[in-house]
Amino acid sequence: MPEDFVVTPWEVSGVVDYDKLVERFGTQRIDAALLERIHRHTGDLHPMLKRALFFSHRDMNWILDEYEKGNRFALYTGRGPSSGIHLGHMVPWFVVKWLQDKFRATLWFQITDDEKYLFRDFDKLEDSRKVAYDNILDIIAMGFDPKLTKIFIDTEYIRHLYPLAVEISKRITFSTAKAVFGFDESFNIGQIFYTAIQSVPCFLPSVEAGRNVPVLIPCGIDQDPHFRVTRDVAERLGYSKPAGLYSRLMPGLLGLESKMSTSRPETAIFATDSEKAMRKKIANAFTGGRATVEEQRKLGANPHICSVFAYYTYLFAPEDRYLAEVERTCKSGERLCGDCKAELADHIAKFLKGHQERREQAKHRLEEFMLRDEGVAAPSTR
Amino acid sequence: MPEDFVVTPWEVSGVVDYDKLVERFGTQRIDAALLERIHRHTGDLHPMLKRALFFSHRDMNWILDEYEKGNRFALYTGRGPSSGIHLGHMVPWFVVKWLQDKFRATLWFQITDDEKYLFRDFDKLEDSRKVAYDNILDIIAMGFDPKLTKIFIDTEYIRHLYPLAVEISKRITFSTAKAVFGFDESFNIGQIFYTAIQSVPCFLPSVEAGRNVPVLIPCGIDQDPHFRVTRDVAERLGYSKPAGLYSRLMPGLLGLESKMSTSRPETAIFATDSEKAMRKKIANAFTGGRATVEEQRKLGANPHICSVFAYYTYLFAPEDRYLAEVERTCKSGERLCGDCKAELADHIAKFLKGHQERREQAKHRLEEFMLRDEGVAAPSTR
Repeated sequence: MPEDFVVTPWEVSGVVDYDKLVERFGTQRIDAALLERIHRHTGDLHPMLKRALFFSHRDMNWILDEYEKGNRFALYTGRGPSSGIHLGHMVPWFVVKWLQDKFRATLWFQITDDEKYLFRDFDKLEDSRKVAYDNILDIIAMGFDPKLTKIFIDTEYIRHLYPLAVEISKRITFSTAKAVFGFDESFNIGQIFYTAIQSVPCFLPSVEAGRNVPVLIPCGIDQDPHFRVTRDVAERLGYSKPAGLYSRLMPGLLGLESKMSTSRPETAIFATDSEKAMRKKIANAFTGGRATVEEQRKLGANPHICSVFAYYTYLFAPEDRYLAEVERTCKSGERLCGDCKAELADHIAKFLKGHQERREQAKHRLEEFMLRDEGVAAPSTR
Repeated sequence: MPEDFVVTPWEVSGVVDYDKLVERFGTQRIDAALLERIHRHTGDLHPMLKRALFFSHRDMNWILDEYEKGNRFALYTGRGPSSGIHLGHMVPWFVVKWLQDKFRATLWFQITDDEKYLFRDFDKLEDSRKVAYDNILDIIAMGFDPKLTKIFIDTEYIRHLYPLAVEISKRITFSTAKAVFGFDESFNIGQIFYTAIQSVPCFLPSVEAGRNVPVLIPCGIDQDPHFRVTRDVAERLGYSKPAGLYSRLMPGLLGLESKMSTSRPETAIFATDSEKAMRKKIANAFTGGRATVEEQRKLGANPHICSVFAYYTYLFAPEDRYLAEVERTCKSGERLCGDCKAELADHIAKFLKGHQERREQAKHRLEEFMLRDEGVAAPSTR
């Protein structure tokens, strides 16, 4: 029987049923007790946690156990530099920043230029590395604390990654990789090896500290297969299993079941979009509105199938009262889609303006954030 | 039908039929015309070439075509640091040195600590790296020209290897690796990827020079499968196919069909053997001698099944007249095995004495030969 949907680190297809996915992957739901426990340490809750956009985890209670014992955790997340950054990419990063601020946790940020070349996003490895440098500007613009953030690009930082990757790879058979990632014999040997590289940062904080440091990985749930494999080998290598905090995949602008896609720019708002381009995309977004203004005034619209409402929910109505008001006025017919879109576009314009300014400044701040060896320089042709 | 013998980079079993192997691998025999052509450039021929101990090649005529056009080739060979060095390991190195001297060719010498860890010779990667440093002393002691020799250890030099390895690995499917190396699904993903790392030095001379440099790989024929794969991807990456010059595998001391084995020290003479230990091993070596002295004096012995005679042939009777004399007196019964062994042991003792002195000096000469990045140091516990 063919699967109704597929989620791997390199493919999301079909309509994702997150309940089924949690079961399939064997992760845990984030429940009220866990939220309560996080709240005790943070004093509030990030809207994405409250709203179950971050909805699943592995071993988050253990992370808090250790934290309560005084054993601080490190954060690890990553970016496959396949294209420019859009708001969907940023979703986990907002939560990563919030966790960094609340727990004063060191963040290891891996940029996987090797992966994006091996998985066919680029014909030249160097092109992947150029996009890596572009993406890093957006990462820095998120406002991470430079004293607590280490960004590195796989091919540049490989001397520190490869020995551990070799140790990890010795403990993963092709048979396991095939089962977890759906590889067959036509996959290239770089793709097959790659998961070992993505495992490494789970252990780097421990290597650096010379003791076992708990690691928490906030990321899209599509990345869980890598860390399932990592968790299986961790203890055999003398390290703790990494914990995970997993988000849903933010829908595209063409409906809740649509995806953001770089090859179709109308599906997503990119970090470098002009205000005009952004407003046009929002104006064309799919909503839960009625066919006519009259009908909508009378019957109200449906926010629960609406991409615009999803953008409020994920990113642009952090205050619960405001989100509730958008929802109420939408359903009641007081709010028309055109006005609602213009209101969202104002929020996004404000965000993009600030982000793009910080992005410009980031060009002069690489050295504050990046781990690079002697003799490694950014690509010369940028 | 099971194969009568198996030769891969990691396994040699059964009695190797070199005629069949050449056919199976699709390499060429070194014929009289090729020897004649080499001789024109070198003025003489290394005994291992004359005696067909180096017996097979790929594209050696192309190497000479290019050389004659003024396009000098680089040499590339390697060592998997699984144990101490024995004379069998040195066989290709003597020819590498001869080629370096005659053609003034730059030699790239790869030490594959990752490989030996992945293929289960060690439980700890660090142990493989320690043996690497030990083996490098023997390599330097061979007398290579420090101005023309670059020795590097995979895990230390990986920043220069990994980007190319990734490019190579993208062009090799698991299906190909399975067919060439006999992998199945129980192999680990590091083993599967590894051939990409061994391919890289085929292209490093071109990367360094910024133009296509022909590369000649003198090595044991068991390494050919790696370079068959490399040759298949080379042109797609914009490089020339590497050429090969392949030796037989020198027999062990317990008969021509025996192997040298580190786990059975009596099978081989090691670079660090004491004279006493060496003499004992030679005294116990398998020969083609008769049951009694009387019989041998009358009927003569058989050098063509004799490990001791093989040692003369490979390494310790470089003068053809002397080798012929050993053979004649062996066959005629003038030479008894005890005397013949003592004579060989004298040659080996002389060689070991010189080698061990140069090996001691090599401890202070690492920097003359090694490619290492800033911040890379030899293992601290040596």
